[in-house]
Amino acid sequence: MAEALIVGAGEGYSGSLARLLAREGYAVRLAARDTAKLAALCAETGATAHACDAADPAQVAALFAAAGEAAEVVVYNPSYRVRGPVTELDPAEVRRALEVCAFGGFLVAQQAARRMLARGRGAILLTGASASVKGYPRSAPFAMGKFALRGLAQSLARELHPQGVHVVHIVIDGGIRGAGRPDAGRDTLLDPDAIAATALHLVRQPRSAWSWEIELRPWTETF
Amino acid sequence: MAEALIVGAGEGYSGSLARLLAREGYAVRLAARDTAKLAALCAETGATAHACDAADPAQVAALFAAAGEAAEVVVYNPSYRVRGPVTELDPAEVRRALEVCAFGGFLVAQQAARRMLARGRGAILLTGASASVKGYPRSAPFAMGKFALRGLAQSLARELHPQGVHVVHIVIDGGIRGAGRPDAGRDTLLDPDAIAATALHLVRQPRSAWSWEIELRPWTETF
Amino acid sequence: MAEALIVGAGEGYSGSLARLLAREGYAVRLAARDTAKLAALCAETGATAHACDAADPAQVAALFAAAGEAAEVVVYNPSYRVRGPVTELDPAEVRRALEVCAFGGFLVAQQAARRMLARGRGAILLTGASASVKGYPRSAPFAMGKFALRGLAQSLARELHPQGVHVVHIVIDGGIRGAGRPDAGRDTLLDPDAIAATALHLVRQPRSAWSWEIELRPWTETF
Amino acid sequence: MAEALIVGAGEGYSGSLARLLAREGYAVRLAARDTAKLAALCAETGATAHACDAADPAQVAALFAAAGEAAEVVVYNPSYRVRGPVTELDPAEVRRALEVCAFGGFLVAQQAARRMLARGRGAILLTGASASVKGYPRSAPFAMGKFALRGLAQSLARELHPQGVHVVHIVIDGGIRGAGRPDAGRDTLLDPDAIAATALHLVRQPRSAWSWEIELRPWTETF
Repeated sequence: MAEALIVGAGEGYSGSLARLLAREGYAVRLAARDTAKLAALCAETGATAHACDAADPAQVAALFAAAGEAAEVVVYNPSYRVRGPVTELDPAEVRRALEVCAFGGFLVAQQAARRMLARGRGAILLTGASASVKGYPRSAPFAMGKFALRGLAQSLARELHPQGVHVVHIVIDGGIRGAGRPDAGRDTLLDPDAIAATALHLVRQPRSAWSWEIELRPWTETF
Repeated sequence: MAEALIVGAGEGYSGSLARLLAREGYAVRLAARDTAKLAALCAETGATAHACDAADPAQVAALFAAAGEAAEVVVYNPSYRVRGPVTELDPAEVRRALEVCAFGGFLVAQQAARRMLARGRGAILLTGASASVKGYPRSAPFAMGKFALRGLAQSLARELHPQGVHVVHIVIDGGIRGAGRPDAGRDTLLDPDAIAATALHLVRQPRSAWSWEIELRPWTETF
Repeated sequence: MAEALIVGAGEGYSGSLARLLAREGYAVRLAARDTAKLAALCAETGATAHACDAADPAQVAALFAAAGEAAEVVVYNPSYRVRGPVTELDPAEVRRALEVCAFGGFLVAQQAARRMLARGRGAILLTGASASVKGYPRSAPFAMGKFALRGLAQSLARELHPQGVHVVHIVIDGGIRGAGRPDAGRDTLLDPDAIAATALHLVRQPRSAWSWEIELRPWTETF
Repeated sequence: MAEALIVGAGEGYSGSLARLLAREGYAVRLAARDTAKLAALCAETGATAHACDAADPAQVAALFAAAGEAAEVVVYNPSYRVRGPVTELDPAEVRRALEVCAFGGFLVAQQAARRMLARGRGAILLTGASASVKGYPRSAPFAMGKFALRGLAQSLARELHPQGVHVVHIVIDGGIRGAGRPDAGRDTLLDPDAIAATALHLVRQPRSAWSWEIELRPWTETF
């Protein structure tokens, strides 16, 4: 039974992807700092939950030893956004944005790469945002973190693709529909199931025609 | 029965897409300057063949009147490459590259948009290449034509997406496997069926999570 | 005395550049379809005026034979913008946008390259716009033309730089201040003299540190 | 007397810029972790040297209190590169790359912005590299750090330009010529004086025609 590990699991896209992968036959493991919020998703999908601060090297190593040895799909989803004029930002928050958005992505990708390279296959999915490709004003920390994650994705795509491991950067450009954020059928917010469907399509691309990046946005979103 | 129209049909990606759309239940129409080469593909897919010089406004208008009125998927695939040092290029060839790569794309997209906007839905697929995003030396005409087509795609995505018509630019970055160009299972050339599968996925994306562009390349391709 | 040739000369940036180059000691030649409008600029700068439809290969060849044999700086500035919903655009206008924005740029660059390569030095400046890097809705023809010119610039930079000829694409992102378009000192429109100053700086960059592209916009311009 | 502060000063571009700014009449302050290496440059330019670990918020705050209160030009130059297969990289080194390349850039830009915004003018220069725009294989940490710095630069350009403070990201794409790295007049390495000349040009751009980014590379460099 193929295995998948989603780091930074919760509601939205990651939850939809967990359900989709479970339906497609994957044994799913979910990791988050707070596993309490994962109970319902685990019950629904049969997934196991693992506590992990993704920005901590030792915790990420332990997570993979416990739940990532055989994962053929590994997803890095955590994000940390702080906004404000550059003059008022707390440096500790900027450091946190870099750690959660990017450094944790490196740690997870490194652990995944070690195992996938040994098998010569696997897919690593990194979650981007509008800020991955456009630095917005009064949002420097998020731009820094998401640009950094994109740099990681591009570097790893060039390094790992020729070794059989697929790296995918999914840029989610828009708000995601959710329980507390409906859009009344107008589709002005991304349906998380639709994001997951594209993620699965990318995971299944044959190696002769791989994408390393895709942008997704609602039909009404300006860009 | 849903209809699809592929302009610039032949072997490779466009042939694979014709077969895939036919299998998925589309009534397929194929257009090319020389329809003789389409006979086998028509026989296999039940498609009809239509002669059309895609760079000629009157011929493109006639093509849509005859075969594009109800098309829900319209593909623009023609390409024209001429290489050489800039000093030695024939201006007539440069003009031809602009006409085939880009002007014809406009003509086809315009005819498609008129019909799709009336229905508030549809998908227009434009075929890009490595040269769409990187201007190579000694290849100015192809860079000009493919950059122009990408400009068209981006402009139309911003204009037509909010009106319900999906515009997709597929950047094929690498050689395509074919009868005369096998790769012995090493997957260093794009499998045209794999390109078609991604094209179909994009056509089927729900409007809340649309992509306007995707790059596809073999796992071994440097970029 | 060093020579410069500005194709598509008129008011604005090209006029400022003509004045600046004249002050810096260049013998300046100006080309435009209608030379009547160049009289004042010629009187002021000592430049000669030459009639030329830059999209006509024979006229461009004749222009260089008459006024471009020794030009060390060649500027391509013509532009042609038509706006409107894609469904309403006149194909002839789209073709014209491609010819004026891009095909003429090729013709001029080709003639310049032939002469500059023989000397192993020279600078070719191509004028871009916001539309060179962003395809705006209801502006497909301009996006096509300006993307194509950028493709030309990038291809030629890669081809000609190693042969000693400097290719520069200047993206002017914003409106340009002029006699009929003052901005009351708020600097929300580009000062054409400022654009010209950056152009001259780029022309004078030593070959060990060349730029092939620069974007210029007013401090207040969103991007 | 106008003041300038260069953080991460040493040989190469930063040394050339210090000399150029001094010649142009600026009072120059230099900061580095190890000030011993700055003695000769200080003697030559009349600059003062200040010890500072640019990734430490308190040290950067102290630096600006001591030497940055009136700086009209502030340069952030530190860089930290570690290479290797992703599987073999030390996470501590990746963290260091993010801190030196990007987090320190934020700290310096924040201190500079506070002072410059109060005066409504000033220029902040951030030093990029090839890795700022292209993630190379076996170089993930540098890609992460330099992409992040570019995200910072773009975000700050959008935020600070309309308030009168100019943000400039200079992408140095190639090796820099130096005492231990001559190129025998072939100009295949960037002359640091040429980089500095472009930096000064950008500092002096009138606000009606600002650039936020420029790439510089030797004529022979492929890209």
